[in-house]
Amino acid sequence: MADRRALFALDGTVYLDGNSLGALPEAVPGRIADVIRREWGELRIRSWDESGWWTAPERIGDLIAPLVGAAPGQIVVGDSTSVNVFKAVVGAIRLARAGTDGNPAGTARDELLVDASTFPTDGYIAASAARMTGCEIRAVLPRDVPQALGPRTAAVLLNHVDYRGGRLHDLPSLTRAVRAAGAYTVWDLCHSAGALPVGLDAHGVDLAVGCTYKYLNGGPGSPAYLYVRRDLQPLFDSPLPGWTGHAEPFGMHRGYTPGEGALRGRVGTPEILSALALEEALTVWDGVAIEEVRAKSLALTDFFLECVARYVPEGRVEVMTPAAHHERGSQIALRCADAEPVMAGLIARGVVGDFRAPDTLRFGFTPLYLSFAETERAARVLGEVLAARP
Amino acid sequence: MADRRALFALDGTVYLDGNSLGALPEAVPGRIADVIRREWGELRIRSWDESGWWTAPERIGDLIAPLVGAAPGQIVVGDSTSVNVFKAVVGAIRLARAGTDGNPAGTARDELLVDASTFPTDGYIAASAARMTGCEIRAVLPRDVPQALGPRTAAVLLNHVDYRGGRLHDLPSLTRAVRAAGAYTVWDLCHSAGALPVGLDAHGVDLAVGCTYKYLNGGPGSPAYLYVRRDLQPLFDSPLPGWTGHAEPFGMHRGYTPGEGALRGRVGTPEILSALALEEALTVWDGVAIEEVRAKSLALTDFFLECVARYVPEGRVEVMTPAAHHERGSQIALRCADAEPVMAGLIARGVVGDFRAPDTLRFGFTPLYLSFAETERAARVLGEVLAARP
Repeated sequence: MADRRALFALDGTVYLDGNSLGALPEAVPGRIADVIRREWGELRIRSWDESGWWTAPERIGDLIAPLVGAAPGQIVVGDSTSVNVFKAVVGAIRLARAGTDGNPAGTARDELLVDASTFPTDGYIAASAARMTGCEIRAVLPRDVPQALGPRTAAVLLNHVDYRGGRLHDLPSLTRAVRAAGAYTVWDLCHSAGALPVGLDAHGVDLAVGCTYKYLNGGPGSPAYLYVRRDLQPLFDSPLPGWTGHAEPFGMHRGYTPGEGALRGRVGTPEILSALALEEALTVWDGVAIEEVRAKSLALTDFFLECVARYVPEGRVEVMTPAAHHERGSQIALRCADAEPVMAGLIARGVVGDFRAPDTLRFGFTPLYLSFAETERAARVLGEVLAARP
Repeated sequence: MADRRALFALDGTVYLDGNSLGALPEAVPGRIADVIRREWGELRIRSWDESGWWTAPERIGDLIAPLVGAAPGQIVVGDSTSVNVFKAVVGAIRLARAGTDGNPAGTARDELLVDASTFPTDGYIAASAARMTGCEIRAVLPRDVPQALGPRTAAVLLNHVDYRGGRLHDLPSLTRAVRAAGAYTVWDLCHSAGALPVGLDAHGVDLAVGCTYKYLNGGPGSPAYLYVRRDLQPLFDSPLPGWTGHAEPFGMHRGYTPGEGALRGRVGTPEILSALALEEALTVWDGVAIEEVRAKSLALTDFFLECVARYVPEGRVEVMTPAAHHERGSQIALRCADAEPVMAGLIARGVVGDFRAPDTLRFGFTPLYLSFAETERAARVLGEVLAARP
């Protein structure tokens, strides 16, 4: 995988913040220059057809699909993660109420379970979805979901990898448990897609969302995506039925008839510059198997933990990320007194991670462009920064 | 205004589709190259602060504000028009129900009026907003709105300029009528912003949305915007309360506390490349008064109508756009048999307008970069294309 490093714009810093904003793939500047100058500047409106702008959301979705274990035709790119969480959660609740899953007679599906440890926006948006669909929302830690499920559960919104501590949740078994209860899963893949195998199709996930600017390197605020399992698509009832998801968008019909397939998740006109930067960024994955990425990710994080144990003065940090591989994403979080100034010290010395309030140092490991030598340097500098502080 | 033409990438074609996708401002390629190479590629995550990415939605909103007659702090850029219609319509219904406007006791605000001639996505999204808030939706032509208003009316979604025929609706008097009924207006400015004065503040508009890729030249799918009048902002209750609109977005709080001002309309992470292309595109307006733009727009469309009368064989087209200036936007729509092949013939001869099913030729007039000579040529070529067809 070392050959991939040359595909990115890198410098002397050790960039351990690729789980927040991935590094720039070298192919992007040229592609976007052409999109702006020729496709927009010269072809102008013709580019919606001739340059493939109109179909970009589905086309780019199909590029993401193999990285998350999805067959083509189930992922559409566009809008932010928050907006996609809204589509997916409302869609899941409506699927549960469509009542094809043998709900005990007379029981309403009026409860939404949300990962209590979630990145906040998922919780905020889920609360709005619950309010607008007449559901009660309940915050539950992923491990407690199986016991919390019941005949009232409509949908469950879960994170594949926890954004703070880096814990990897058990997607296969949680998905099975939710399904057994007649409810629908929405998985947020922001911190797992591009770092480890997800297996959406294999594990029977119902809906999923994710961002593309972390391990997928799509650029600042690049559009998110929505996965709707193929057999659920005909029933997927979006709360944001915009014209670009219409069966005949240029028919200018007054009534909404949803299109077929993944494009049913589309809403308005896609932000083309951001979308095509993402498309170009995804070329770095050509010929890479996500299993290889996972193997290197685990090797890097194992090695980082070893180096931290070796270099960091006793008692100065506490490892928050699980040691067990099956519970670890692709980041290491360390609890540390004075985490904020410590991170500032690291950044000043060319090791870029991030600080999460109140006391967390986060280090993201992006196997495509990160080396073992950089990993060692990061831990060493952390040890030095801590040693220099009383 | 002729000096503005040099700020755009133009060629030998007569581009009358700037009401669909504005021409490329020359400043954009350089800015975006720098955003990608330096801000993303070198500064990476630091750019959220150091390059002003985080505050771009409000900052760019304030650049649009003078063009639509809004004081600063009331417009935020981000998401598509469709998504903003959802925020605005649900927000308006909730404002009506907050009950500060003297609604007769015991009457529910459960009706949503929607422009019957609207661009379809507004109708689709409004229907979803109505469904999710327990409202009934009713399609009404703008001129019939005053009679349709009643004690049940919660909100009214209207277009400032009709996308098909180019009719300009009477924003001041309709806004007054809606307010008098205790309901709230949502104006869609897609086809007026950047072409004529809107006067949001002056006329007491409640909420407004618009796209930025037409007369504002922001590029393909550039982000839309949301206006919420300042005094309504503390009560604005978004159905999409994403983390970037939180009072303390990096506090990672579990509960949602909306921020103050326009940023309350924000949802997820903004698509930065598309947003900053728009920001740069807006520099073409420096020192331009929208009243000047309107004067030239009317002169251009008057002149086009004269030329059409002179060049086009009798009876071959019917002007759909109103003749009266106070009812005319900045486009001319002509009804024409065989409109589709006629437009293809025009495009083949370097005059680019667009076809709208089933029988409409649309010509958009963008005063910043369109000349009278080009206007004459467009009508002349139309006459020739029609004369050459039986």
